[in-house]
Amino acid sequence: MSATARFPLPPGSTLGILGGGQLGRMLAQAAARLGFDVAILEPEADSPAARVAAHCIVGAYDDPKALKALAELCPVVTYEFENVPAVAVERLVGLGVEVAPGALALAVAQDRAAEKRFLNEAGAPTVAFEPADTPEAAAAAALKLGAPCLMKTRREGYDGKGQRWVEHAADAPAVFEALGGRPVILEAPADFVRELSVIAARGRDGAVAVYPLAENHHEKGVLRRSVAPARVAPETAAQAERIAARVLNALDYVGVIGIELFEMAGGKLLVNEIAPRVHNTGHWTQDGCEVDQFEQHIRAVAGWPLGPTHARAQVEMLNLLGEEVETWPKYAAEPETRVHLYGKREAKPGRKMGHVNRLRGPL
Amino acid sequence: MSATARFPLPPGSTLGILGGGQLGRMLAQAAARLGFDVAILEPEADSPAARVAAHCIVGAYDDPKALKALAELCPVVTYEFENVPAVAVERLVGLGVEVAPGALALAVAQDRAAEKRFLNEAGAPTVAFEPADTPEAAAAAALKLGAPCLMKTRREGYDGKGQRWVEHAADAPAVFEALGGRPVILEAPADFVRELSVIAARGRDGAVAVYPLAENHHEKGVLRRSVAPARVAPETAAQAERIAARVLNALDYVGVIGIELFEMAGGKLLVNEIAPRVHNTGHWTQDGCEVDQFEQHIRAVAGWPLGPTHARAQVEMLNLLGEEVETWPKYAAEPETRVHLYGKREAKPGRKMGHVNRLRGPL
Repeated sequence: MSATARFPLPPGSTLGILGGGQLGRMLAQAAARLGFDVAILEPEADSPAARVAAHCIVGAYDDPKALKALAELCPVVTYEFENVPAVAVERLVGLGVEVAPGALALAVAQDRAAEKRFLNEAGAPTVAFEPADTPEAAAAAALKLGAPCLMKTRREGYDGKGQRWVEHAADAPAVFEALGGRPVILEAPADFVRELSVIAARGRDGAVAVYPLAENHHEKGVLRRSVAPARVAPETAAQAERIAARVLNALDYVGVIGIELFEMAGGKLLVNEIAPRVHNTGHWTQDGCEVDQFEQHIRAVAGWPLGPTHARAQVEMLNLLGEEVETWPKYAAEPETRVHLYGKREAKPGRKMGHVNRLRGPL
Repeated sequence: MSATARFPLPPGSTLGILGGGQLGRMLAQAAARLGFDVAILEPEADSPAARVAAHCIVGAYDDPKALKALAELCPVVTYEFENVPAVAVERLVGLGVEVAPGALALAVAQDRAAEKRFLNEAGAPTVAFEPADTPEAAAAAALKLGAPCLMKTRREGYDGKGQRWVEHAADAPAVFEALGGRPVILEAPADFVRELSVIAARGRDGAVAVYPLAENHHEKGVLRRSVAPARVAPETAAQAERIAARVLNALDYVGVIGIELFEMAGGKLLVNEIAPRVHNTGHWTQDGCEVDQFEQHIRAVAGWPLGPTHARAQVEMLNLLGEEVETWPKYAAEPETRVHLYGKREAKPGRKMGHVNRLRGPL
């Protein structure tokens, strides 16, 4: 039997987190500040999150024994990544666990076609897109959208993986095969001016809280740098808040969500994708806000009131990728820079090893 | 063999902490943010700090096996309380471990007579005092200082324990026996206007960084409330900075120190006592400063540069004692209040269960 959740979940309860990476680690630290114990379920031993958590269950995310052990400790479970197997959530729910964000948010986030359909229905605009399950359908979709267009696998893929440009419609079948011959979607190119993102939260009472927008810069598909609050027109901020509220309410969402946006030339925002979890472009909130995205997420899933989301300072967040982590002494010596390192053992190329938040003075 | 410390200690190293209470817990969390693993040595299993640390060694602080196990993991060890047995530090140093703050700071902080002598020699004024090892000496001391005066055991005693008022010099022998017949000191009463404290740090390079003063309010010898930055005259702040620098330099100190002060009617500051560790009156720095006292302490002992100490906001810190922790929903619902809970299992009367930092707007 699992412990039964009552909300607000009292301190001293144990919160479960699926995933032991840096997001799980920072969630675990936020939960501990609020007096919770944390249990991590993660396939690898000695994960970054396990080293700051009271309990670690080492096992596959869909391992029934591991999930049972987690359910026995935790009335409430959340996760740090969107590719949680649906069966894991089903099992946990079957064992009486409250899983947040819920199954709908996961299902939508795991399938790029379902995601874009959902977004458009919720009143959150996206680029034009076409799903395709065969090489022929891919060619037809490329013709319909016009080349160049972007082909992405419907499932999995993150940080720019699982996607390729289709330069000419005739290339579409080959690109389809190169992506593994799996179902894909094709997207019209977004002729955007900037990449922005909005981090927002919805509580168990339906309250919505939205952080200021971040402006993001990617390299090779990986986030390198965010600046927040982004300098935007008031109407742009209002658009982002409307989009966040529509998405959160349509998903009957509980927790923090990351919404990646394209800012188009006329000022219109399109949703690129949503991540049903805390988000790399929200790390600036750790040093720029009173309640950061990690505590906000824990507050939401634990049924506590949401905290304030206004910025206290402007922040430039830089990811430390791979061996860049070796530059920590430089950042440690900058008075305006806060260092956040994840305790990963091996600095593989491109791996997110840490980040720094540079405070750029008052707003 | 222990790992050999090289400074600055690189992330990925394991830092040892003697003591598994709330101060150890908050130190462990700060260390993890900087990418360190933490090992706690603590006699009780399931301590607040152990639940957020990578390693926990359960054992007495002077247990040679436990200390050896700690030394094998940790090139650098610190502590959360001043009553660390001297033999524990000697053993760790003998095993090649860098212990900070060092043995001198501990020796001074463990003996109220040595402490006051040291302070006066360092140019940090205190009330008049007299040590006494016998009932007769206690009576003579009370006559010399004048009654009423305060008798305190030379060793141990914190949060108002181990001390009593001597109303008349003739009562001194009885009070001496009531305190256990152990060596004591008698102190002239401090006719103070306010209780203040200063939290300061000294790095391995000798750099000193001082936080703004806090104004403190005690009840029954236990801290109830601090407000910081305290509203003080510039000369008072300058006095506090001079005292902190003198004390830190005279101890060749590494780490954060808490210095409790009496503000006298004319504005002069007297040192009440020093604590060679992070301090309850410095908890406001978690939400009032960019680098809090916990990260500052880790930076110092790890040989990193010290961080900035200016205030970003005025903060009122309230301790949650015993069953007061049950009022957490009230504080969780206040937008301006940050909640910090320690994960202690049992709310014994007067026990420090958590604290809240109320942000009282910009400076």
